[in-house]
Parts: sequence; structure tokens; C-alpha cells
Amino acid sequence: MLKFNNQFVNSFINKEDFENMLHRADAAYDVLMSKSGEGNDKLGWLSLPEDYDKSEFEEIKKSAEYIKSNADVLIVIGIGGSYLGARAVIEALKSSNYNLLEKDTPQIYFIGNSLSPSSLNEIIELCKDKDIAVNVISKSGTTTEPAIAFRIFRELVNSKYSKEEAAKRIFCTTDKNKGTLKELADREGYKTFVVPDDVGGRYSVLTAVGLLPVAVAGIDIDSLMGGAYKALSDINVNKSELGEVLNYVAVRNCFYEMGKRLECFVSYEPRMAMFNEWLKQLFGESEGKDGKGLFPVSTVFSTDLHSLGQYIQESGSSLMFETVVKFNEFDSDREIGAEEGNLDGLNFLAGEKLSVVNEKARLGTLLAHTEGGVGNLVVEVERLDEQHLGYLIYYYETVCAVSGYVLGVNPFNQPGVESYKKNMFALLGKPGYESEKERLEKQLGL
Amino acid sequence: MLKFNNQFVNSFINKEDFENMLHRADAAYDVLMSKSGEGNDKLGWLSLPEDYDKSEFEEIKKSAEYIKSNADVLIVIGIGGSYLGARAVIEALKSSNYNLLEKDTPQIYFIGNSLSPSSLNEIIELCKDKDIAVNVISKSGTTTEPAIAFRIFRELVNSKYSKEEAAKRIFCTTDKNKGTLKELADREGYKTFVVPDDVGGRYSVLTAVGLLPVAVAGIDIDSLMGGAYKALSDINVNKSELGEVLNYVAVRNCFYEMGKRLECFVSYEPRMAMFNEWLKQLFGESEGKDGKGLFPVSTVFSTDLHSLGQYIQESGSSLMFETVVKFNEFDSDREIGAEEGNLDGLNFLAGEKLSVVNEKARLGTLLAHTEGGVGNLVVEVERLDEQHLGYLIYYYETVCAVSGYVLGVNPFNQPGVESYKKNMFALLGKPGYESEKERLEKQLGL
Repeated sequence: MLKFNNQFVNSFINKEDFENMLHRADAAYDVLMSKSGEGNDKLGWLSLPEDYDKSEFEEIKKSAEYIKSNADVLIVIGIGGSYLGARAVIEALKSSNYNLLEKDTPQIYFIGNSLSPSSLNEIIELCKDKDIAVNVISKSGTTTEPAIAFRIFRELVNSKYSKEEAAKRIFCTTDKNKGTLKELADREGYKTFVVPDDVGGRYSVLTAVGLLPVAVAGIDIDSLMGGAYKALSDINVNKSELGEVLNYVAVRNCFYEMGKRLECFVSYEPRMAMFNEWLKQLFGESEGKDGKGLFPVSTVFSTDLHSLGQYIQESGSSLMFETVVKFNEFDSDREIGAEEGNLDGLNFLAGEKLSVVNEKARLGTLLAHTEGGVGNLVVEVERLDEQHLGYLIYYYETVCAVSGYVLGVNPFNQPGVESYKKNMFALLGKPGYESEKERLEKQLGL
Repeated sequence: MLKFNNQFVNSFINKEDFENMLHRADAAYDVLMSKSGEGNDKLGWLSLPEDYDKSEFEEIKKSAEYIKSNADVLIVIGIGGSYLGARAVIEALKSSNYNLLEKDTPQIYFIGNSLSPSSLNEIIELCKDKDIAVNVISKSGTTTEPAIAFRIFRELVNSKYSKEEAAKRIFCTTDKNKGTLKELADREGYKTFVVPDDVGGRYSVLTAVGLLPVAVAGIDIDSLMGGAYKALSDINVNKSELGEVLNYVAVRNCFYEMGKRLECFVSYEPRMAMFNEWLKQLFGESEGKDGKGLFPVSTVFSTDLHSLGQYIQESGSSLMFETVVKFNEFDSDREIGAEEGNLDGLNFLAGEKLSVVNEKARLGTLLAHTEGGVGNLVVEVERLDEQHLGYLIYYYETVCAVSGYVLGVNPFNQPGVESYKKNMFALLGKPGYESEKERLEKQLGL
């Protein structure tokens, strides 16, 4: 279902270095599978496609049906891992313009992922006179961005519906037993789904965190999980595809040791842009610590060949390499017609499919960037559907975890995310941060 | 109207180095103003806010009114500089969700910026049963992506309307005298607007290239140009704000010489995301050549603090610095309410405006990232409206041009963009590329 192709970077990487790195990748994989590495309390994602809570899974589907039948709009409140996964899957499988499409599923707006008043007010305006449902996603319930958005939308739902009806329209994905959001949900009678303790935010797309919004969008979550299960099976059980993981891990770490600092995730399908954003969190948060790691960058080609292409071509070689996720088959295509007079000079393309032109652009770019010194890795996937996307998700999660162990970091923590939060709390005058407030305000010259 | 603030990077940059760089920036500015540097045939943007074609400007407004009155949908066909500027301005001043808003202006879809069949087919589907107008933007008319999209939409418009009516619905922004698109437009009787010879694509947002779609969105293009004129006046005429340019140029080149390779453009307003994309082309294409240049990256905070924040905080110091565009006033705001019981623990924010929380997040991040070794530059703008955005555009164009001269490159060419195109043409079998085709296919193992 997936092939990793590194034939076009062979000229950049010394064979012996690669073999050595492959051994390190293999050892790191063993650390992962034996659960003996750092962060081993966060390995729930590894067996998730097999071990997931089947009865909760059915509840997710039921709630999704309920929302589809009773709401015009689903408001999804979350940030980071409680935001990117669901949005990535919905856009990849439906469209970046999901909300513009004619459809029999609700509009889905993602909020609580910034503090911009104009963004929030706009969504409130879009909900006017609509029947709404809310899915708030937060392990603790105390993350500022989603907590504020939820307070505002709770008020809105409570003012629009009776208490009983309001309670039926709010779905909380949170800790199983404890925390602010869990307590609030229990007290108000909101339905809850679980963010498992052993699955970190950026690895949670195949839990209720991602699955409920995805199901509301009309996506077949059985197939999505089925694809992930196939990956688990291919990679970890019969190991027939383990090489696709280890080769990728080895190449990217070779590039890192050669001094490259950017991995540019490339797609030739605009609807994969949010999937690239999901990859940015997955890799950036997993590897970016202790002064180490590849900085993840996202591009959509050929669009960005007309903005970043110049840099990549002529200045990218010492800084970056590219990893392209490439699909082989397309549901939607269009043939370019012939035109009398050939006014635009395009008749050499008459009868050609647009997908073929897109593929030639990809191959032309691969050769051009390779010649410019920017290596191109290719992750080839048969098609873009539920099953293959589920496979791709699990594949990338595994690549990232193994890669983090090769790099020598804990791929499952994110201590650096706290720094801005602490400062923000202090500056906002949150009780308990008084002395910090004074110190920071002095630094700011306030 | 705009202040550049580098007080928070003073600790990172040696004062003498900064003073030296400031002299170099000053000299580079003189090269720009005396038009004695490389690419000096592309300096039309410099006087544009004063010297623009006033009668064409009126025609743009008339055509915009015509489109608003006669079309439900405007299809804008263009890539790179013929795409990003208009979209950046529309999203910044209206919304990233412009097409979802209730409004009395047409839907605006941007196409011809990729080769994805599913993206194009989706837009065709969205146009079904709608009255459409098309604005195709291409200096030559031969760039593959927009040329294909235009061929397909020309067919669509011709099949939907009479020949005469179709001709009234197609607007071509192209070379004044020559080229494929100009010839086609003249033969078919399409109205044309001009891409000036002395303004490159990425500097063209304040020509018809950007202004026609922007005007159709209901944006006051007089104010936009007025803001740019104010910048021209402040920077180049009375020079009261020239320091805001030169200081920025000096700081970013100091960082570059210290080994930093990424400039991360940051906004705390999601609707500025496309403006950041415009900045990426502006800087990436202008500076990324001869193995030199800062690679431009875009983030929207606090969203991306929950994806890239970890990396920036703990691994960013050797690689990057950040430049935040910050607005001081907001049209849209919302007060956080108090809640009985304080179930979510947010009552310490009761009575606080969301814009204030967003600003404290910015300040908290500034201090956190500074402590992590990632310098924060701040471009402070009074508010986000037509005038200030026009000012900001001209300001950034000037910063980029001067900076390119400091770096020692021609900031106005983009030779590297041709490489993938040539390969693509060869692989597609375009006449004249036969021997190249064979060579490339061999490299690909085809």
C-alpha cells in the first residue's frame, strides 16, 4: 500500500554512512518495540489500531449520526493535536473547501486554536440561526485557547437551547477520569469520549480526538482504522514493510548528520496541505528539543514552486531535503481538450490528462531539485482514500518515533510548549504567578 | 503608521556589527534609489503608488463594478505573483473564510495555481448554475498552470454564454503589447489590463494584477494605494521612516551573517496567513539565489505554538529568528464573561478582552523565545485596514529590495524557477525538447 523510494538521494549519501545509520534505525526500532526507551508511557498509539476501545468506537459513530441529524454546524474546539489530525483527515479525504461543498453533512468549524477575536467572532456570526453541536477536545480542560472558546460557545449553546437540549449538543473528548473538563462534563451531563493516558496529542488522531469530527464529515472511520491496522500488521507483525520505515529513518538522519536542518514535506495535492501541518507538529514536537532536530516545513507544489522554488533550486542544497507524498491513482481527473487555432500554444497537451501533467511536474521538479543538490525522498501511496490515509498516518507515526530515538531524544514529550504559556499566565495575572508577572513586565519595560 | 522594534534582539547582536551593517544597508538603499544596482529595469514598484496609470485604475474600478453586478463567482487564474498578492489582501482585509461569509460581492476562487485535477474539478462544480466572470493573470500567457486552467474555463464560459456575452466576462491582465495572452485577448475581444514591464510578479500586487480581484471583493483600492503612497512618502521623500526600513535590513542581515538561515514570519491573526505566504515569495525569490539567503517560513500563533513551538523554543536558536507583524487596534473584539461556579477555572480572565489575551500571549512568547535564543523582531502597525496594509506592502517591498542588495544578489530575478518548467516541458513532449526528454527519462529509469 505504500513504498518508500530513496533511489534519487543515493548520490548524496555515502553508502557506508547509510548502512551504519540503518543499523542505528534498527536498534532504535527495537527500543520502540520493547518499550524500553524514554517516553514509553506514551506508546498507546502503537497498538491502537488493534486494541482500540470497540464499544467507544461504536459510540463515536452513534454520536456522529446524532450530530449529522441534529446540527447544521459542528464546532470543533481544540488546539495542536486536538485540532490538526481531524482537520488534516477531513481536508485530505473531502476537500480543503469542505465547508463550501454541497453535502449532507454539517459544516465543521475549528475554533479555540488561536486567540484572535476576529476569527472567533466570524464563526459565531456563521452560526447565527443554525443548529449547532460542539465537540470540545482537551485532555485537561485548562489549555487557554480552547478553554476560552468553550466558555463562549457553552454560553451560546445554553442561551439558544433548553438546558436539557444543550447538554445533548455538547460532546467532550477529555481525560477518562479527572480534570477540569471531565468534571465540568459530568456535572452538566455532557457526553464524554476519552483521550487515552498513553497517547500523546500529536499521536491521537485515531482516538476519539480525531475520529468524532472525522465521522461527522461523513468519512468511513472503519476503513481509516482498517488502514492503520494494515500498517501495524505490515510493519510490526509480519514486518514485510518494516524496511519502508527504517530506510526513511536512516536517510533523514543521514541528512541531519550531514548538516541539513529542514525537511520539506511536499504534496502535489492542495487538499494535503493540512496533512502537512499535522506532519509539522508530529515531527517538530517529537524531535525539536535539546538543540536537535530537523525543522519541518510544508509546501504544496506546483503552487509553491512559484514562491519558494527559486530558493530551493539555487540556495536549498546545504539546508534542506524534500519528502514527497505521491499518490498513484486519482478518482477525479480531467482531459485537456484540443483547441482550434491553438491560440494559447497548449495543443501539445491535447488529449493528456491533468493528473499526468501534474505527475510530469513532479518528476521534472525531482530532477531539477536533485540537480540543485536538494535530495528528494518519495513516499508512494496507491490512492488517497480512507484506508490508505489510515496506513499513511500509522506509517508516519512510526517513522517519527523511531527517528526520534535515533536522534537521541524523547519523541513523546514537549516541555518547551509550557514556556509561553507560563509567561502568558503571569502577564494575564493568573493567581499564583504574581512574582513572575513583575519580573516579566520589567523585562518588557512595562 | 508603522514602527520597527528591534529592542528585544539587542542582546543577540554585537553593537559594532550592527552599526557596520547599518552602513551597508544605507549604501544598499542608495543603490536602490539611484537605480544603479542589478535588476534596475524592474524598479517600477518603487514609484508605483505615485506614478500608476490613473485611467487604468478607474477602468479597474469599473470592471470590478461590472463583475460585482453580473457575476456570482469570480475565477482568478494565476500563480506566484499573479496569485498570492490579491489573495493575501482579500484574506487580510476580509477574512480567510471570505467565500463562507454572507456578502454582496461575488465568491472568488483562485485557480491555475496547481495542476491538481481534483482541485480544479471542485471549483468547476462550485460554479455550476452560477454566473461567472474570469480574470486571467499572466504576463506571457504561457505559464503552464494558469494556461491550462484558462483553456478549460474559456471553454466553460463559451459553452455557457453567447460569444458576445462570454467576451464581456473575461478579463486578461497581461503584457501591454505582446505575448500569447495579449494576442488571444485582442483576437477574442477580451478586456485587458497591464502587467507593467518594470514590475516583477512578486512586486505586482498594487498593479492591475492584484487590484482587480481585490476591488471585486469590495475592498477600497484608493485607500490601499493611499497607504502605499504614504509609505513611499515617509520612506523615500521626507525619509522620516527610512530608519524603520534600514534597521530591519541591518538586523536580518546581521542574523544571516551570524549563521541563522530561517526568518519566521509570525502573525497572531489567522487572516494574515496568506500575507505571510506573499512574504515567503517576496523574500524567498528575491534572496534565495547564489547559495545565499534566509529561507522564509510562516507561522500563525498561538495556533502553531502547539505544533512548531516546541522546536522553536528548544532547538531554534542556531537556526532562526522571528519577525512578528503586530496590530495595535482591533475592530472586532469580545469580552470574556464571568461564570458562576468557575467550572473551567477561567474567571481570572472575566472582563478581559480577547484581544488583550492574544497580546499577552504575544508578549509571553516574545520573552519565552528570546530566552530560548530566538530573537523577536516586531513590526508594529496601528490597525489592519486598507491604508495600513498598503503601507505594510510597500514597506516590506522596500525592506526586501534593500536587503537583497546588502546580501549581494539581484533581488528582482528568479532564474531558478525555470528549471522545473524546462524538465516538465521535456517530459510532456513539448516540441523542441526532444533530446532533453530522452536524457531526463533515462535519469528517471523510464
